Amino acid sequence: MSKDKKFVSEITPQSEDFSKWYIDVIKKAELMDYSPVRGCIIFRPEGYELWENIQRDLDRRFKETGHRNAYFPLFIPESFFQKEKEHVEGFNPELPWVTEAAGEKLEERLAIRPTSETMFGHMYAKWIQSYRDLPLLINQWANVVRWEKRTLPFLRTSEFLWQEGHTAHENEEEARQETMQMLGIYRDFVEEFLAIPVIVGQKTPSERFAGAVDTYSIEAMMKDGRAVQAGTSHYLGTKFAVAFDIKYLDRENQLQFAHTTSWGVSTRLIGAMIMVHGDDRGLALPPKVAPTQVIMIPIGPAKTRDQVVGRVDELYAELKNAGVRVKVDDRSDVSPGWKFNEYEMRGIPLRLELGPRDMENGQVVLVSRISGEKKVVEQANLVAEVEAMLVQIHNEMFEKAKQFREDHFYSVDTLDEMKASQEEQRGFVLAGWCGSEACEKQVKEETGATSRNIPFEPAEKKSTCLVCGDAAEHTVVFARAY
Amino acid sequence: MSKDKKFVSEITPQSEDFSKWYIDVIKKAELMDYSPVRGCIIFRPEGYELWENIQRDLDRRFKETGHRNAYFPLFIPESFFQKEKEHVEGFNPELPWVTEAAGEKLEERLAIRPTSETMFGHMYAKWIQSYRDLPLLINQWANVVRWEKRTLPFLRTSEFLWQEGHTAHENEEEARQETMQMLGIYRDFVEEFLAIPVIVGQKTPSERFAGAVDTYSIEAMMKDGRAVQAGTSHYLGTKFAVAFDIKYLDRENQLQFAHTTSWGVSTRLIGAMIMVHGDDRGLALPPKVAPTQVIMIPIGPAKTRDQVVGRVDELYAELKNAGVRVKVDDRSDVSPGWKFNEYEMRGIPLRLELGPRDMENGQVVLVSRISGEKKVVEQANLVAEVEAMLVQIHNEMFEKAKQFREDHFYSVDTLDEMKASQEEQRGFVLAGWCGSEACEKQVKEETGATSRNIPFEPAEKKSTCLVCGDAAEHTVVFARAY
Repeated sequence: MSKDKKFVSEITPQSEDFSKWYIDVIKKAELMDYSPVRGCIIFRPEGYELWENIQRDLDRRFKETGHRNAYFPLFIPESFFQKEKEHVEGFNPELPWVTEAAGEKLEERLAIRPTSETMFGHMYAKWIQSYRDLPLLINQWANVVRWEKRTLPFLRTSEFLWQEGHTAHENEEEARQETMQMLGIYRDFVEEFLAIPVIVGQKTPSERFAGAVDTYSIEAMMKDGRAVQAGTSHYLGTKFAVAFDIKYLDRENQLQFAHTTSWGVSTRLIGAMIMVHGDDRGLALPPKVAPTQVIMIPIGPAKTRDQVVGRVDELYAELKNAGVRVKVDDRSDVSPGWKFNEYEMRGIPLRLELGPRDMENGQVVLVSRISGEKKVVEQANLVAEVEAMLVQIHNEMFEKAKQFREDHFYSVDTLDEMKASQEEQRGFVLAGWCGSEACEKQVKEETGATSRNIPFEPAEKKSTCLVCGDAAEHTVVFARAY
Repeated sequence: MSKDKKFVSEITPQSEDFSKWYIDVIKKAELMDYSPVRGCIIFRPEGYELWENIQRDLDRRFKETGHRNAYFPLFIPESFFQKEKEHVEGFNPELPWVTEAAGEKLEERLAIRPTSETMFGHMYAKWIQSYRDLPLLINQWANVVRWEKRTLPFLRTSEFLWQEGHTAHENEEEARQETMQMLGIYRDFVEEFLAIPVIVGQKTPSERFAGAVDTYSIEAMMKDGRAVQAGTSHYLGTKFAVAFDIKYLDRENQLQFAHTTSWGVSTRLIGAMIMVHGDDRGLALPPKVAPTQVIMIPIGPAKTRDQVVGRVDELYAELKNAGVRVKVDDRSDVSPGWKFNEYEMRGIPLRLELGPRDMENGQVVLVSRISGEKKVVEQANLVAEVEAMLVQIHNEMFEKAKQFREDHFYSVDTLDEMKASQEEQRGFVLAGWCGSEACEKQVKEETGATSRNIPFEPAEKKSTCLVCGDAAEHTVVFARAY
């Protein structure tokens, strides 16, 4: 291969066709591939390692707050779904059914789990007898299936990977505390680990989880102005406890229903991360989640090659020992320029270059994937400099995403204003809402946007409903969503 | 609760009814519960944490040998199974079928994966073009389903968790190297982490994985003399490459079929670990896998209680900081005796007792779950002493299991000798075998034992077939198996 050959990423610009940009990027960066099964993707190693890193950090947060992992069955008997009426109405349309096994028709159909409240409900009823058994704090990492009409890799796949927490408590206060704690953990994680700013708030009644008393969500804005619901936490009251008979003897020896919660995030987070930070050069991976944080590239003519590569290997070992996820690309059949472009496409946060002149000066050059800033640092100080720059890159990514959101967040008072705001550049809309399902529906019919949530800390409080003009019960974020 | 109340474990003695002993133990130790789905269990937190610890160590070994994790779909289209004839014959009888989804009958039935060679084959054909794409070393951690007639918690469940590695190579030599490397990793892991001695060898043709050229296994002996196949590694030759068209351009620009392997271990390992080490007092968990390695129990009268508990908490922090998985039980509503029995039942490897006299002497008492040995050690030396004793306990467990196997391993020359050997105490049998399927079948018909493997390092080489008396082609281990 000629060293003059240019790395052509062939990625469709975002401004030209955002959907095509997304598919180009995830394919070229080898994050996924389509599978022969409708709506199901293959998570290739580059993509799956993102999930492994997400899992590791989230799981630590769950364990630190007293939760333990378990594993419940993939299958849910048909009769189970019938037990909680709202729940079955919500999920029934998307269920795949196992009707035969080992050559025989099954007596009772088995659904593939879309979520496991019913199975957890059934077992919790068995395990919980007394207040001493509470709180029961269990999480599971698993695959679930929802037979979707329209799918999009990572963001909406028929089979996806997630975690689902299911907890049972003595009373409403503790259950609500848990609901809010997990919501806070999600917010902290998505912002601190994935550098994605989120709007934390309560879902409107029509957007609640099927069977919940209250649903809370964190919402993120993608580069095309659309929303992605990045995580949800549900206070289920005693609904599932009643449906599945989860009762306990309280401290006064009275039989009570438990109050339960459930909460989950999924591989959808990977899609959100790509769409928030990626650009026309390709992926941009936040340092905390990137499988490779630093790519080291030796440069210079053949005569100094061995020397440079030798020093690169030494510095590689230093960084590795310090816990930095680092790789070296010392291929000689492609040019440094080729490598620069390739790793920018793959979204590696930090590039380290070392050439003969850097060798003389005892320095290296660090280049940020985000700002393009080139920083010359002392080799003697490498670990500290790299760690500092990774933190800086995380902050750059977060601030950039926050600024983008601010620039695409419109405060409106009427539906017409809302439509007008979307004409220039699609984005989120902050508006007053009277609380009626009719007005909420009308927004959807006329703009395609759904209510995302009622933010806990809106930028301002709106006073009138954008549809009917009546007094606003809530200040709501509306947006077209993935 | 009266402090005189005795902890009664109510575990059926192994000698009375081994199967009932097993179920008693796994239920009382809260490792699992039965689910409403036929053949599927709930992995409760105590049981699931064993799997988490197993995963962590195995995954490290996989990553260290260049493998990366990915995630392939749960569903496999019906047409896929037809592509490799032996494979479909082997697995077809146990498949559950999804025939409807989202209210509609599916055009093509979808199986739930029993193993993923076919899906990997399909994608590898797509991803592999050139020798530069090889070797391709991918593993996945996933749930699989095999609709079993007879199930047993952990050892044989319809849905189970496992890892399945699938690799593609340029030639037979490298593929066989990989096959043997992974077998060796399994042996090292099962012995070093689970303290289970295994017999490493090759499966007979009739026991091969459906579609493999050669299958290798590690076999372990349970406390009832039966065998558990603890892991398998398959050399698949070019069979799946031909079936799925996995071809590559070699270094001479010629189109070649890739040589592939697959290998897996599952949650069956948990069942094996219980049956190898458990006793009439309950579970006995090997230190490396035990969720809790040390249980600290303050003892003594009420007047010294606070002092003792204070010191226990200090020592707890020391052990925790040193990376020991340690817990304190300072409940005052049950006696120390109760706690001793409970934690023995739960299989905690090491108990630490601290009472007023130990306080005076600056000592603690360490008690091994296995030998019952009580060792008085200096508090000042605690971490080192605990670490040393955990190593000792691991070695005790391994040597005990090895001795048990030796005591139940019979070298025989005829079928009658084999039957006689099983009358006293069931165990493994080492015998010569002519290599004919007929003789192998006869052993199974007359004794219920299957060939486990042809050990690489048999204790002795047998010269005649135990059934027909002809010259022995192989020295084989036979046993009744789970």
